[in-house]
Amino acid sequence: MTKEENLKLYEEWVLKASAYEMALSVIGVDKMTIAPVGGNEYRDQRTAILAGELFELNTDPKIQKVLEELLKEELDGDTKKAVELYYQEMMKVVSIPKDEYVAFQNLKSKAYNDWLEAKTKNDYSIFEPTLTKLIEEVKKIYAYRKSDVPLYDQMLNDYEPGMTMAQYDDFFAQVKERLVPLIQRIAKAKQVDTSFLYKSYPIAKQREYMDEILKYIRFEPDWGYQNETEHPFTTWVCENDCRTTTKYLENNIIAAILSTVHEVGHATYEHDIDPKYDGMILSNGVSSGMHESQSRLMENYLGRTKAFWEYNYPKLQECFPEQLKDVSLDAFVDAINASSPSLIRTEADELTYPLHIMIRYEIEKRLFSGELSTENLDQTWNKMYEEYLGIHSENAKEGILQDVHWSETYFGYFPTYALGSAIAAQIVHTMRQQIDVDQLLRENRYDEIVKWLKENIHRYGCRYTANEILTKATGEPFNPKYYLDYLEEKYTKLYHLEG
Amino acid sequence: MTKEENLKLYEEWVLKASAYEMALSVIGVDKMTIAPVGGNEYRDQRTAILAGELFELNTDPKIQKVLEELLKEELDGDTKKAVELYYQEMMKVVSIPKDEYVAFQNLKSKAYNDWLEAKTKNDYSIFEPTLTKLIEEVKKIYAYRKSDVPLYDQMLNDYEPGMTMAQYDDFFAQVKERLVPLIQRIAKAKQVDTSFLYKSYPIAKQREYMDEILKYIRFEPDWGYQNETEHPFTTWVCENDCRTTTKYLENNIIAAILSTVHEVGHATYEHDIDPKYDGMILSNGVSSGMHESQSRLMENYLGRTKAFWEYNYPKLQECFPEQLKDVSLDAFVDAINASSPSLIRTEADELTYPLHIMIRYEIEKRLFSGELSTENLDQTWNKMYEEYLGIHSENAKEGILQDVHWSETYFGYFPTYALGSAIAAQIVHTMRQQIDVDQLLRENRYDEIVKWLKENIHRYGCRYTANEILTKATGEPFNPKYYLDYLEEKYTKLYHLEG
Repeated sequence: MTKEENLKLYEEWVLKASAYEMALSVIGVDKMTIAPVGGNEYRDQRTAILAGELFELNTDPKIQKVLEELLKEELDGDTKKAVELYYQEMMKVVSIPKDEYVAFQNLKSKAYNDWLEAKTKNDYSIFEPTLTKLIEEVKKIYAYRKSDVPLYDQMLNDYEPGMTMAQYDDFFAQVKERLVPLIQRIAKAKQVDTSFLYKSYPIAKQREYMDEILKYIRFEPDWGYQNETEHPFTTWVCENDCRTTTKYLENNIIAAILSTVHEVGHATYEHDIDPKYDGMILSNGVSSGMHESQSRLMENYLGRTKAFWEYNYPKLQECFPEQLKDVSLDAFVDAINASSPSLIRTEADELTYPLHIMIRYEIEKRLFSGELSTENLDQTWNKMYEEYLGIHSENAKEGILQDVHWSETYFGYFPTYALGSAIAAQIVHTMRQQIDVDQLLRENRYDEIVKWLKENIHRYGCRYTANEILTKATGEPFNPKYYLDYLEEKYTKLYHLEG
Repeated sequence: MTKEENLKLYEEWVLKASAYEMALSVIGVDKMTIAPVGGNEYRDQRTAILAGELFELNTDPKIQKVLEELLKEELDGDTKKAVELYYQEMMKVVSIPKDEYVAFQNLKSKAYNDWLEAKTKNDYSIFEPTLTKLIEEVKKIYAYRKSDVPLYDQMLNDYEPGMTMAQYDDFFAQVKERLVPLIQRIAKAKQVDTSFLYKSYPIAKQREYMDEILKYIRFEPDWGYQNETEHPFTTWVCENDCRTTTKYLENNIIAAILSTVHEVGHATYEHDIDPKYDGMILSNGVSSGMHESQSRLMENYLGRTKAFWEYNYPKLQECFPEQLKDVSLDAFVDAINASSPSLIRTEADELTYPLHIMIRYEIEKRLFSGELSTENLDQTWNKMYEEYLGIHSENAKEGILQDVHWSETYFGYFPTYALGSAIAAQIVHTMRQQIDVDQLLRENRYDEIVKWLKENIHRYGCRYTANEILTKATGEPFNPKYYLDYLEEKYTKLYHLEG
């Protein structure tokens, strides 16, 4: 076929696939937010059929040939990159028989329900056989790729193209070496008063205040919508359709706010990708780590700063005068940065967070190397929390059942959470050399920070690799030094550990 | 092919089509409730692609042959009926070229926008050429059916299988004969005080109270979810997934409540259809009129009764003590039943409502017989309001532009709204002979009323025709006498018109 014929087929295929992707996004966000659970089974079964249709599109041998022919043609840069990425993705799945793929999707839906039941009943034994089955099936699915790369390396690479077990091992070794002693020193230091954060803050009032924060961080209703769910998340359909969720806690004034700032970080990234990529593969965050870097950047490197609260704290005090009238800005900012080992990853502070991830990384690695099985995995989990964080619980829902991700077979995904924080540190290091972040935060000019991020990171989508984007923006590829320096400096100061 | 082979193909086809229908339902309800408008264009374009895929499924010549062969086989009653209905539906669209079908969908999207602009600008001339074009295109689309039945009869039959122009003419003649004089007598009688309904009722409080009502009418969160929209509606996916919306008005305590009871009437019908029909054509309300009968039954024949409020009014008073402390139960019930001619159909009372419908029916009939053109149709509209309801407005947005339905080409649909009220009266007449409805309402035993409706109406879905179901339930086919008797008796009493 001629180049033009191939391009026409390619474009029709991209458009059609994007219709299924849109549908699956909307059905997914609906299920996670408002859909009656009674309809889950019916919807899940039909969602699997649509996913199967998308799978057929994504493995269509005719399109495989089109992509292969296009790879040999002279194409404009955007199209060339998109065709390469589509082809890469196709090669990952093209050998999986459709029946097996559909069965795998069904298994995942069932696994989510099993996990939820197990967590609700606080009983790992309900989820354990499902987890075993998931791991088996994942292995079978990956085996179709016939790759020589070790299995867990393939998984890591799926979420963070370019990252390997060796690199993560090195990263987590540094995390362990520099942060575990720091956490231990803090345990012995004078603690920060955080008690006022956990007074009673009526949720209706928190919702009202959230409107202020959403405005401040430029989450606009014509492209974004925030719902409430048990587990906050972000989903996006296109440039002008990004959904976030948050969760309010009556006895916690900061959780919903920082979780919102975090999710809006994800949403803003997607919103800011060049709209000319809408509906095609380039219109996605480049990697899970880069995505998480943008949410963490907003949550931790902006949302936890004194400058952020210089603008926002007076309004918060106004909203909750009784609870906060005697709390100074400094005391408030110290409190929301305090560090103390805890059991739940999503509630962890900035400093102990990467150790939660390290535990999951170590477990996943050994699950897939065969060193560990799912049997008694809850006990292994608890022992590692004891070892790295010095805390312990026998409750599975505070332990191995706390996260949904394994039920979704997101193996290899957790490490990108820690990586994201580290990438964010590197980006912020450069950004602070180029714009006066604190002054912008103080002056309600958050949009100018977003603009810097859009120009230097967001707009590219997948047009370049994460490391290419990072190098363009900061002058060097990923370097965890910035992250560990930042944490050491920040927490040494906060806990007066000098000398 | 053998019967078994055909059945297998048929079942696969039904399942696949139901997946697209589920997706389109969820995408639709999402768009109408929470989706950011910025994403509409992107989503709409892709929704059209999915709708096109469904159209191809629904006109697949291979499946047409399967259905034709199955029609000649011995099948169980459920399957036979389903195959017949699928075939009927297929015959309606199978001859329409796909391009023309897609163009028609696009015209409808454009027509909606034109209608909205015309209504916003209060200018019928903006919408008139579009309405002309819609009528032309509808005629073309129907012409593909090559039916001998007069066009408007075909349309009526699409929404209410079995109903003809002759039957509707007879129905509306009786409505006119018995209700127009009654309305005129009420206009001269002592009016009912309704002023307290329109005090300030804070919406947050109304929302709280609504939870009580939703519980009372057995709208359960595991199969139903209520959102808020400008124009309330109900959408359903399957037995255990029905969505309703409502709209709160600060200066109206009854609008949101009765609109909720109405929509939950639709939702309950769908929820109660035998789940063995889930995902197939039998799992739909049997006709628009029967559907509307179930929403009107709950809204008017339950929700406006004294017995309903004997249980619910004390709680309403508790919720709004200042506004309602001096209003007795009787005064409240009289007020929510008061009748007074008004311009807007959706705000009309129970008695004047069918005249709004009669006007639309008369106009549609004459539009399609060629007696009327779209030119000066706004004037015709206004004259008919003057004639039947004694009120007049020159504002097109309070007149011919008030309803969205013509922009959607729902010609033939309006009459089912009046028919629904009349069917409800007939059903309630029988129901009240078999169960003590008022006592059940008083004693918070709404579930027993729902149970009666489920057994006698809901569970059948499309397994029988509307008239078959009505005859099973009430002993006779549709008879408007019950409706007109009910209205005459009720309003004669309310306005003390005896003697």
